[in-house]
Amino acid sequence: MTIFTKIINGEIPSYKIAENEHFYAFLDIFPLVKGHTLVICKNETDKFFDVADNLLQEWLLFAKPIAQAIEKVIPCNRIGVSVVGLEVPHAHMHLIPINSADDMNFSRSKLKLSVEEFKAIQAEIVAAL
Amino acid sequence: MTIFTKIINGEIPSYKIAENEHFYAFLDIFPLVKGHTLVICKNETDKFFDVADNLLQEWLLFAKPIAQAIEKVIPCNRIGVSVVGLEVPHAHMHLIPINSADDMNFSRSKLKLSVEEFKAIQAEIVAAL
Repeated sequence: MTIFTKIINGEIPSYKIAENEHFYAFLDIFPLVKGHTLVICKNETDKFFDVADNLLQEWLLFAKPIAQAIEKVIPCNRIGVSVVGLEVPHAHMHLIPINSADDMNFSRSKLKLSVEEFKAIQAEIVAAL
Repeated sequence: MTIFTKIINGEIPSYKIAENEHFYAFLDIFPLVKGHTLVICKNETDKFFDVADNLLQEWLLFAKPIAQAIEKVIPCNRIGVSVVGLEVPHAHMHLIPINSADDMNFSRSKLKLSVEEFKAIQAEIVAAL
């Protein structure tokens, strides 16, 4: 069972943003910038493009209102999208509010936010949904 | 008219990989790694998540066989996906064969490939489709 499945099941707590039958979105706890959100497929599939066609078809439609909510509350030029997948073998998509391409550079150091900061960002994004 | 629309119209040449009614895929001429491919929507929309729902729904299904073809011919761990969009106001998705997260770091310098190298990569990916 991957760490993401444990998050979906509530065994590991997360700052949840949205959920439907097939997808779950929550704040990345190692954010590149404030508002950095992960969208995961509930089905455990390692590689993004091995995800079933019907789920790939729904993925961006599930992500769209979340991206638009993040864009409303986090000052940014737009929402960047990134699928890397080298660390957790469970397909996931990063939604990252960006002002420069370097905001999506996974080699740079991650932000350290407090529980209060995460909760505030979560509340703002959820309210904008 | 964006540079991508000129590419779609054939006014600017490109190393085309695939095309259908709504999408066009071609090799990025400033590649981060060999096989780096762009998937663009023929409709000119600046921000990715402003693209119409019916097109967002098809986008990953159009990209899937291309990603799988790239993965067959370029030695890599998997295909990374990135949507940045700060330079050309015409929604586009990068498909990048990656071995490390740094292969998706847009801050790093781009490869310089010859016309012959681009043509060889194009031919290999198209043959694997």
